[in-house]
Amino acid sequence: MERNIQVEQIKQSPTASREVEIVERKGIGHPDSVADGIAESVSRALSKYYIKNYGRILHHNTDQVEVVGGQADPKFGGGNVLEPTYILLSGRATSTVGDERVPVKSIAIKSAKDYLRDHFPDLDIDADVMIDSRIGNGSIDLRGLYDTRKFKANDTSFGVGFAPFTDTEKIVKLTENYINGELKKTLPQIGYDIKVMGFRKNKTINLTVAAAYVDKYVKDPTEYYSIKEELTNKIMDNAIKYTDNDIKVFVNTGDIKEDKVYYLTVTGLSMENGDDGSVGRGNRVTGLITPYRPMSMEAAAGKNPVTHVGKLYNVLSNIIANKIVEEEGGDIKEVLVRIVSQIGRPVDEPHVAGIQVIYEDNVDHSKHKNNIRAIADDKLAHISDLTNMFVDGKVDVF
Amino acid sequence: MERNIQVEQIKQSPTASREVEIVERKGIGHPDSVADGIAESVSRALSKYYIKNYGRILHHNTDQVEVVGGQADPKFGGGNVLEPTYILLSGRATSTVGDERVPVKSIAIKSAKDYLRDHFPDLDIDADVMIDSRIGNGSIDLRGLYDTRKFKANDTSFGVGFAPFTDTEKIVKLTENYINGELKKTLPQIGYDIKVMGFRKNKTINLTVAAAYVDKYVKDPTEYYSIKEELTNKIMDNAIKYTDNDIKVFVNTGDIKEDKVYYLTVTGLSMENGDDGSVGRGNRVTGLITPYRPMSMEAAAGKNPVTHVGKLYNVLSNIIANKIVEEEGGDIKEVLVRIVSQIGRPVDEPHVAGIQVIYEDNVDHSKHKNNIRAIADDKLAHISDLTNMFVDGKVDVF
Amino acid sequence: MERNIQVEQIKQSPTASREVEIVERKGIGHPDSVADGIAESVSRALSKYYIKNYGRILHHNTDQVEVVGGQADPKFGGGNVLEPTYILLSGRATSTVGDERVPVKSIAIKSAKDYLRDHFPDLDIDADVMIDSRIGNGSIDLRGLYDTRKFKANDTSFGVGFAPFTDTEKIVKLTENYINGELKKTLPQIGYDIKVMGFRKNKTINLTVAAAYVDKYVKDPTEYYSIKEELTNKIMDNAIKYTDNDIKVFVNTGDIKEDKVYYLTVTGLSMENGDDGSVGRGNRVTGLITPYRPMSMEAAAGKNPVTHVGKLYNVLSNIIANKIVEEEGGDIKEVLVRIVSQIGRPVDEPHVAGIQVIYEDNVDHSKHKNNIRAIADDKLAHISDLTNMFVDGKVDVF
Amino acid sequence: MERNIQVEQIKQSPTASREVEIVERKGIGHPDSVADGIAESVSRALSKYYIKNYGRILHHNTDQVEVVGGQADPKFGGGNVLEPTYILLSGRATSTVGDERVPVKSIAIKSAKDYLRDHFPDLDIDADVMIDSRIGNGSIDLRGLYDTRKFKANDTSFGVGFAPFTDTEKIVKLTENYINGELKKTLPQIGYDIKVMGFRKNKTINLTVAAAYVDKYVKDPTEYYSIKEELTNKIMDNAIKYTDNDIKVFVNTGDIKEDKVYYLTVTGLSMENGDDGSVGRGNRVTGLITPYRPMSMEAAAGKNPVTHVGKLYNVLSNIIANKIVEEEGGDIKEVLVRIVSQIGRPVDEPHVAGIQVIYEDNVDHSKHKNNIRAIADDKLAHISDLTNMFVDGKVDVF
Repeated sequence: MERNIQVEQIKQSPTASREVEIVERKGIGHPDSVADGIAESVSRALSKYYIKNYGRILHHNTDQVEVVGGQADPKFGGGNVLEPTYILLSGRATSTVGDERVPVKSIAIKSAKDYLRDHFPDLDIDADVMIDSRIGNGSIDLRGLYDTRKFKANDTSFGVGFAPFTDTEKIVKLTENYINGELKKTLPQIGYDIKVMGFRKNKTINLTVAAAYVDKYVKDPTEYYSIKEELTNKIMDNAIKYTDNDIKVFVNTGDIKEDKVYYLTVTGLSMENGDDGSVGRGNRVTGLITPYRPMSMEAAAGKNPVTHVGKLYNVLSNIIANKIVEEEGGDIKEVLVRIVSQIGRPVDEPHVAGIQVIYEDNVDHSKHKNNIRAIADDKLAHISDLTNMFVDGKVDVF
Repeated sequence: MERNIQVEQIKQSPTASREVEIVERKGIGHPDSVADGIAESVSRALSKYYIKNYGRILHHNTDQVEVVGGQADPKFGGGNVLEPTYILLSGRATSTVGDERVPVKSIAIKSAKDYLRDHFPDLDIDADVMIDSRIGNGSIDLRGLYDTRKFKANDTSFGVGFAPFTDTEKIVKLTENYINGELKKTLPQIGYDIKVMGFRKNKTINLTVAAAYVDKYVKDPTEYYSIKEELTNKIMDNAIKYTDNDIKVFVNTGDIKEDKVYYLTVTGLSMENGDDGSVGRGNRVTGLITPYRPMSMEAAAGKNPVTHVGKLYNVLSNIIANKIVEEEGGDIKEVLVRIVSQIGRPVDEPHVAGIQVIYEDNVDHSKHKNNIRAIADDKLAHISDLTNMFVDGKVDVF
Repeated sequence: MERNIQVEQIKQSPTASREVEIVERKGIGHPDSVADGIAESVSRALSKYYIKNYGRILHHNTDQVEVVGGQADPKFGGGNVLEPTYILLSGRATSTVGDERVPVKSIAIKSAKDYLRDHFPDLDIDADVMIDSRIGNGSIDLRGLYDTRKFKANDTSFGVGFAPFTDTEKIVKLTENYINGELKKTLPQIGYDIKVMGFRKNKTINLTVAAAYVDKYVKDPTEYYSIKEELTNKIMDNAIKYTDNDIKVFVNTGDIKEDKVYYLTVTGLSMENGDDGSVGRGNRVTGLITPYRPMSMEAAAGKNPVTHVGKLYNVLSNIIANKIVEEEGGDIKEVLVRIVSQIGRPVDEPHVAGIQVIYEDNVDHSKHKNNIRAIADDKLAHISDLTNMFVDGKVDVF
Repeated sequence: MERNIQVEQIKQSPTASREVEIVERKGIGHPDSVADGIAESVSRALSKYYIKNYGRILHHNTDQVEVVGGQADPKFGGGNVLEPTYILLSGRATSTVGDERVPVKSIAIKSAKDYLRDHFPDLDIDADVMIDSRIGNGSIDLRGLYDTRKFKANDTSFGVGFAPFTDTEKIVKLTENYINGELKKTLPQIGYDIKVMGFRKNKTINLTVAAAYVDKYVKDPTEYYSIKEELTNKIMDNAIKYTDNDIKVFVNTGDIKEDKVYYLTVTGLSMENGDDGSVGRGNRVTGLITPYRPMSMEAAAGKNPVTHVGKLYNVLSNIIANKIVEEEGGDIKEVLVRIVSQIGRPVDEPHVAGIQVIYEDNVDHSKHKNNIRAIADDKLAHISDLTNMFVDGKVDVF
């Protein structure tokens, strides 16, 4: 059956040309991202176990993680975590296969701890977090559907994607990646809870960065401010590489020197002191929150990577959009992809895949239409490749 | 200081004219909505306590509720809840005022139970749910900011709103309201966990409704199917009143007669059997999920109604958009409002309020521009009115 | 097979004649007793469900309840519970019978709430407690044993009992019964958390009573002290009826007028403010803690009433001891009964039942020996009668 | 003031001469002992923190630990833990000292994990347990008393001790120590959950030992039985060194070869599969449960080691009893010590310390009475030495 793929030209200003744009990224240490990261790591660990023992990924959705912030008493030179962060894992997973039992909860809490240990070196897993699991079994009908008609959509759902990133989007994402990546060697004093807000007005991009310091590496306010200046400069130097717009950088604007208000933490993570988080409330699968773009509400992290159309279609929509931009070169200003499932239909045969293209002036849609259709068709045909990419951690979902 | 309100005309097809549209509403009994409802009821109960005892609403954000689905064994004629749904309240709230202590957790669990009791008559609060609270105190700097510079924005955030609803939007929302409202007298067999998905393709609106039955009111499959037919017809009869488009209605498409798969529940709520929910993953403040519209990721339910700009601006944006459409009559096809805050600025003086208008053909923007600006200005000036409306439960947030 | 019952005469001073005696009773509102009461009520509710649905009591032991004290702010005239008491139910119970599921957790939390509601009228179940259940399935071998060789002992265990009560024992028990019973009409200001310590030295019994007041019924310190005086007098008037010893009564000795330290509570229960409790740490099945008597460490409350020898033998030992005293009249000063089980043997055929008798001077043991043996034999033969008495709540276990 | 110490001679058969004797020891891996061990380790860790930071031990009682058994699927050659054991820490501790906060919960969960890691090498702390803390602040009046009148009794309580151990007592305790100590090198297949029941009838001591195997070290039933035989022999060889009585040894009597029922575990701990435990339900401070001896119900583990008379007096009573036996040589058959506190009195001045002595025939009480009194007086005078011994882990409390 031919896939229902619709390609249309639309005429409107691309996002980058509009007057105002807002883009946000919650860094990997933000409580919502911590929840996402754990949810996805649990799904990956379960998937690996299922594949190893049963040759295929069994039903699970571990997309419910609640991070309940602890209490901490940070101090220059090093303070204490007073009350551990409490992390509740829920969702559901196949825990019985015939007569065999799957160690779902043990796998879950272990992978959650491994994830935290691997990503947040200043967090003491033994003392700073308490992890609980109430992961249960799924609802009966969905599981029936899953088991008997494999690779069929589990829900009426949809995904949305776009390409290319605007400069603002690019810079917001790369700024966080830079601080939490390359810059850690130079500025280990900066923890992992980074939030980057990009606000573009006409040709000026304001980057507002909230960055948690790790207290033990900073001896006093003077050092704090000196690091802040260095961080500000480095962010600026990095950002200007990616745009012709003007850049302004603001770091930790909540600091109030006279009231001794600093963004200090013990662990580099604001969840240590009352900041809660949960899955699906932060970044979309693009790694960004883009209110000036169409977005899906889908919480992708932790969803099962075989038939969960919300997860698959959101990621695939972005892949298709990027591929179209890549292949069709300079003629395209912006592509928007939406894929809609229908419950019970094969995952690779969505109800409709709609592609909207904004071209450069005077480009003939008919020249690209078939190619674009073909790209989408091909990606849909190979949608099951995504599954392994999720399991191997090769696709970001937040 | 004059408010930074920008009104611009944009030229693009309004949502209702586009080829495809998807709109979803998770009914009040959907696990995500249950989480939202509890979160907001806790915030309202705390706000009332604060006002009564301290004359003003103290800092709190109870926007973290995790609903961990239980286990149930529904049967025609009446089954059992096997394991109660576990509901974790978190977030934070001011629990000490000078020497006095505020009974935050007692208020919280009581208001959660009251909410459930009031809305879901087939749920046995004593046996079917377990409610736990880990609500803590907020992070120190935000609370400092809150206490000392009242009515200033707590974050760099934004809100987005639009008007008018398309027919699809209108019908999706009203369908759920109808089933969970007026129709309860006629069809008490239908529980509160209703999900309505509207998918419009050109001039046809497909309404896919998932509706949990309450098992004790349905004696057998024959009655189940007869109710389903009646429900389908009533939804249709109700929907056609609101549109000239064609309507198709599909109810419980997951039912499989031969496999005895029905959407039966004991309590009218799918959370009884493994469906989890959390705050902010369901409906936006419009009561809808509208992926073809700009959306905010903000979880409004449970946020404090005084300075939480994410909550205030999302609701206000929609109020402004609706007021503009109402006042400027037939000239306007669609209005989109976005309000952006800046941390530390007064709530009524956003960084920018941007209003985009799509007019009917040949309408002169300059004729409306000042009126539109004035409407937005007035609503911003009276933003504090919203607070009481939230506390009194007069504004829906999901 | 003849039961292994050994009756011996021992020569030692009976407890009542010794120089010093200490006896304690934790009233029904003491946190340890609250845990016991809930544990037993859960077992009774499950037993009834099993009997109703399966004709017999299935395996369960719900003898694990942890009461984690809350926080309260009592005040003359009425204060607040600030943080609810958290109550964790654990243990295990048969939750699957063939293809059917037993609603173990729902039954458990409902019966826990019913128990609290029935016994503690000043506790608000919706606001003052949070009840959670982590009741699981039992360990496989014990359950196998249980299912296949019914009415056989589940463990190598023992029970111990004695009769008659000394005056101190009688008075300690009756004092609590009196305050928490008859006296509630006269002195509703006294809550249910009562602890009575009896310390006899030679011919003087010191009764030290700790009694939680319910704050809303007491308007000020003057009323507090006047009630205290009245309570002291009533306890005295009641106690002297049961003994020829001298009685001294001390109520709430921890009160310190000048520091405004009173034993005030909001709910009549000290668990409201940080006092924790758990099953099996309070009263023995006699309703008393009697360190000058042999005691079993067995936590009887919540144990299954069919084959749990620890529960059965402790209660039966006391029944036998009392029956012996009752039947053999004035010749006996004191009887001590110990019954030892052996895993796998029928419950009514213990490994050994040892009975030690202290006679009045010049009584001939041989005159009573056979009767005593017969009493024990008869009670053992009818041990299964105990099961229904437990289920119907006709035997106290704490 | 002279201490109220009363020394009396009593005439009755010592425990070792009675016909029947039952003695039990729950090994360190028994769920009740696990709870005790964690409770005490938390108290010790807090005490060390308090001493280091404030120069003295602040108020705490962490004597509430609930071990909720997990689920496991042991197999010869190595199975899996399916659901982690959930361990809830409660009790209370001083968490605020002036303006400073004490990291109570972080210390608590860390010390609990350290304890488990140090004692149970086959338990994977990351995957096999979930540790939660709900430790709160204490009740106000007790804390007031504590702070202002230091080293005064916190309660009307008592302790009881005896000496010497009978052969049965000695052997039961040493058997567990042997299996969980020296024998681990030879028989690593035996885990830490060991329960030893000693039942002496006249001159025969039956030792019934339940010993959890660690599945990965045992390849099949044949090896299981061969180890069982070896273990039985070694227990026998060890036990006969300590007595002239006959010894019979029974290991894992619940095994049923034909039904494939073995006592296999993954971790060496039965809590992995549904066995729950809590503080104070297992061994007394002697390390034994001795129903034929007077016992205290006090849960010593986790109690604060400064003023908690229940903890102090139980341990001290045994120390005094042993010292008396040691000093007064062969004249004494048995000593029983009971110390009774009075709330508000200095810890070293109990309300009464009563010492009962059973002498060998023809020994003159008056010859020993003063020495005995002097020993008790001296030990009471130095009771504060106990505190450091608890903190340093030099006194066993279970």
